[in-house]
Amino acid sequence: MSKLLIVGTVAFDEIETPFGKTDKILGGAATFIGLAASQFNVESAIVSVVGEDMPQKYLDLLSSRKIDLSGLEIVKGGKTFYWKGKYHNDLNSRDTLVTELNTLADFNPIVPENYKEADVVMLGNLHPSVQLSVINQMTKKPKLIVLDTMNFWMDNSLPELLEVIKHIDVITINDEEARQLTGEYSLVKAAAKIEKMGPKYVVIKKGEHGALLFHQTKIFFAPALPLEEVFDPTGAGDTFAGGFAGYLAETENISFDNLKNAIIHGSNLASFSVEKFGTERMENLNKDETNKRLLQFKELSQFDIELQ
Amino acid sequence: MSKLLIVGTVAFDEIETPFGKTDKILGGAATFIGLAASQFNVESAIVSVVGEDMPQKYLDLLSSRKIDLSGLEIVKGGKTFYWKGKYHNDLNSRDTLVTELNTLADFNPIVPENYKEADVVMLGNLHPSVQLSVINQMTKKPKLIVLDTMNFWMDNSLPELLEVIKHIDVITINDEEARQLTGEYSLVKAAAKIEKMGPKYVVIKKGEHGALLFHQTKIFFAPALPLEEVFDPTGAGDTFAGGFAGYLAETENISFDNLKNAIIHGSNLASFSVEKFGTERMENLNKDETNKRLLQFKELSQFDIELQ
Repeated sequence: MSKLLIVGTVAFDEIETPFGKTDKILGGAATFIGLAASQFNVESAIVSVVGEDMPQKYLDLLSSRKIDLSGLEIVKGGKTFYWKGKYHNDLNSRDTLVTELNTLADFNPIVPENYKEADVVMLGNLHPSVQLSVINQMTKKPKLIVLDTMNFWMDNSLPELLEVIKHIDVITINDEEARQLTGEYSLVKAAAKIEKMGPKYVVIKKGEHGALLFHQTKIFFAPALPLEEVFDPTGAGDTFAGGFAGYLAETENISFDNLKNAIIHGSNLASFSVEKFGTERMENLNKDETNKRLLQFKELSQFDIELQ
Repeated sequence: MSKLLIVGTVAFDEIETPFGKTDKILGGAATFIGLAASQFNVESAIVSVVGEDMPQKYLDLLSSRKIDLSGLEIVKGGKTFYWKGKYHNDLNSRDTLVTELNTLADFNPIVPENYKEADVVMLGNLHPSVQLSVINQMTKKPKLIVLDTMNFWMDNSLPELLEVIKHIDVITINDEEARQLTGEYSLVKAAAKIEKMGPKYVVIKKGEHGALLFHQTKIFFAPALPLEEVFDPTGAGDTFAGGFAGYLAETENISFDNLKNAIIHGSNLASFSVEKFGTERMENLNKDETNKRLLQFKELSQFDIELQ
């Protein structure tokens, strides 16, 4: 069975949407990535850090999905990274009310020995130096390294970000970030520029407008499933990335055609994630549900046109 | 051969984009619809109005595409509808600098006798009362009536708009307009509400993000082709509508599956239209080019996933 190494935050989120609000609940990029990847037949491990305030039940939830937590550092007396945000009415934008880095401020990632030869590495959104440190700890070149990042690192740690981008195979980034990183408005041009920075594949996430996969002259577009109601978008991008990486780890096939499927699987899982607060929907998701919705993705985007 | 009746403006556009600017050139919804529909094997006619200032060469251009102009009123001493606009750097938004209704202000549409039994009616963006008048002149119920409209009429002529919407089969509208018309943010909910107003099919245009087709519980999504450069978006929506209606008129098949193809054809033609100013690209477009790009649409959106 393939091994997937996941790096990212395990965190507390406190979320307010037009539909309600939560207390401090389980969140974080690595959490969502891990839960999504656990839908596939892979062994995975999380490298992250939390404080002593992280309830055992949350750790048990991850362990119950066969996620190896030996690389999750628990800092004695420390507090876990905490984010509080409020979504606007359209759920497409949000205000960050509180960000407390806490133990994340001095995070020194340690890759467990038995994951230093992992097949796939999923670098969730974190400081690029942390992401690079994980790559440097690998004793065997992974088949695939996927990196997720955001505009915050472009604003504050661009040289480090550009360095880690050199060493990855796939970058996932949203449309505005792709434009910011390259200075190109056209996503076709932006993707071409990013490919020159290192990654062979560029995935541009457009939220409710779907996602684009670029590789040389090839382009694939995966729609987002139009939903009656988006309840809480928190973690949708990480769920997408986790489904993408998990599927590729399971299938051990990094052809363009299989990356297309990986994007559909990622989009599929993300469409569930937004249906409830935090990780709730991902905790209760079965193969029948995901298969049924994959069919909806097919119906949504497949057509049979004859040339004239 | 099927007959397509087109209603809409034939106009002067003066356009400025980041790439350059034009003098007064040929524009208008009916113009773009007619040129797009002429890619298909249909007989079409335009019902519209212009002034004596409309150069014969522009009328000849339309006639050369076998577009019947007997329903195009030329008002003696009158001036043609004129729009001047300037696009912002991202080409996604624009400022209207001048709008002169001129002869359009008192337009009384007259459907030519030999088009009163047209198979398909494409009501381009115009005052809803004009659109309704055309429907009322039909002596035989058309197989399909497609209506395009915009937020201006929702703001200024909502009762008339709601009346005409009762009598149509397909509405094409953009995402913001669908939300304005229904008060629903979710496009799934908005489409369901619009279907209750009359049309069996709802097409929601999302510009560079593609288009959605809704019919009862069915949804189809057509991506826009990611382009290196968008030169001038003027007329893209009308070109989309013209390709959509033209293809349906040619194929005489209004099943959901064929409407999917119609949307792909509309998107395909719109992707050409934006490559040059005004109608320039549509004037020089051949089947080889459109077929080649249809293949790109297939590659862009087709995938072959196996359920697990």
